[in-house]
Amino acid sequence: MVDPLTASAPGATARTTVRRLPDKAVPDRSVLHAVLDAGLVAHLAVVDDDGQPYVVPVAYARDDDRVLVHGSTGSRLFRGLAAGAPTCLTVTLLDGLVVARSAFESSMHYRSVMVLGRCTVLRGAAKTAAVGVLTEHLLPGRWAEVRPPTRKELAATTVLALPLDECSVKVSAGPPDDPPEDVALPVWAGTVPILESFGAPVPAPDLVPGRPVPASVEGWKR
Amino acid sequence: MVDPLTASAPGATARTTVRRLPDKAVPDRSVLHAVLDAGLVAHLAVVDDDGQPYVVPVAYARDDDRVLVHGSTGSRLFRGLAAGAPTCLTVTLLDGLVVARSAFESSMHYRSVMVLGRCTVLRGAAKTAAVGVLTEHLLPGRWAEVRPPTRKELAATTVLALPLDECSVKVSAGPPDDPPEDVALPVWAGTVPILESFGAPVPAPDLVPGRPVPASVEGWKR
Repeated sequence: MVDPLTASAPGATARTTVRRLPDKAVPDRSVLHAVLDAGLVAHLAVVDDDGQPYVVPVAYARDDDRVLVHGSTGSRLFRGLAAGAPTCLTVTLLDGLVVARSAFESSMHYRSVMVLGRCTVLRGAAKTAAVGVLTEHLLPGRWAEVRPPTRKELAATTVLALPLDECSVKVSAGPPDDPPEDVALPVWAGTVPILESFGAPVPAPDLVPGRPVPASVEGWKR
Repeated sequence: MVDPLTASAPGATARTTVRRLPDKAVPDRSVLHAVLDAGLVAHLAVVDDDGQPYVVPVAYARDDDRVLVHGSTGSRLFRGLAAGAPTCLTVTLLDGLVVARSAFESSMHYRSVMVLGRCTVLRGAAKTAAVGVLTEHLLPGRWAEVRPPTRKELAATTVLALPLDECSVKVSAGPPDDPPEDVALPVWAGTVPILESFGAPVPAPDLVPGRPVPASVEGWKR
């Protein structure tokens, strides 16, 4: 167990220091990177003028010490973020169910990263390169295979970078933490892993007959 | 394809009407319920006094036309929500990768629900019942097996209800939507399903030897 007094995340500030369950905070930047690299979707927040938050799932990619996201130039979310609104990006990987002897101790295994900050807008060559990083994160090897983006497509896309300056990382793992008096109860306890995998690729209906699945797609494993 | 002019989510308002990709909006309350019933984790937002949003993964359960969440009474997030702060709860199910001939058309299959509103605090018998609903959503059949909550555990837990009054539902499915000029390119295209499953139950190290996995846990399938 990490000492709650020293438990703090990489890039932790008073706003991101894990106060609840501080033993689950992970003060290790490699874990921060690993969680971001393993996830496929992030949940991104923006707040409107009335203080109403909106949380939207987005594709993302880590690029060194920042996270890239992209969206339509017409999106309210992305217009707000491009204007510098404070945001929070959260990536959560679910790893299992924790089946304790009480509802209170039952929970989930997860790895979760929260990043606070403001985005900057990428333009020009940096923007095109970022689209490549985003594509490679979701679909490794694919950037070299797809038709390159057109000027029109890039103009319709906002690409944002959020620095990994203010972050928290929480990891819940291990067996149920039932108190001694509960361990003696005639109740099963344990964990159930949650596994994510890819199914077999499904060719598009309009694919030219006989075109094989490329090595890039064949190689994707989870 | 749903008519963009009429596409609106169950309980849609000006704030939740899907403006981006309106053909992905699903005006069907049964889909709203199905997505919420299939998910295991929600992302819940709260905004601090400085306008900074925080997005935190939480267990949740649908209970008729509301969503229940619970957390520690000591949590900043739950204290804010219990005080009536506007929130957004988003549940996203990832169903697959969309591998198009361009990066621009590549995307993900997903089902996502966004609920806006303010929570109310549940107390007394309603609170205990809600803990049961939350437990049964995550761990079906388990409420009858676990030790009941103690007064102390209930006192340490905030249970909140968020009505399904203002919601949006988006579903992305189907093959890549490449324009005709891209279909002719020598590039594979299709989709790759993302599958979630449970692994074999792992008994707790302190489990009384010989205690079998209960039918409840054996029955969990995804």
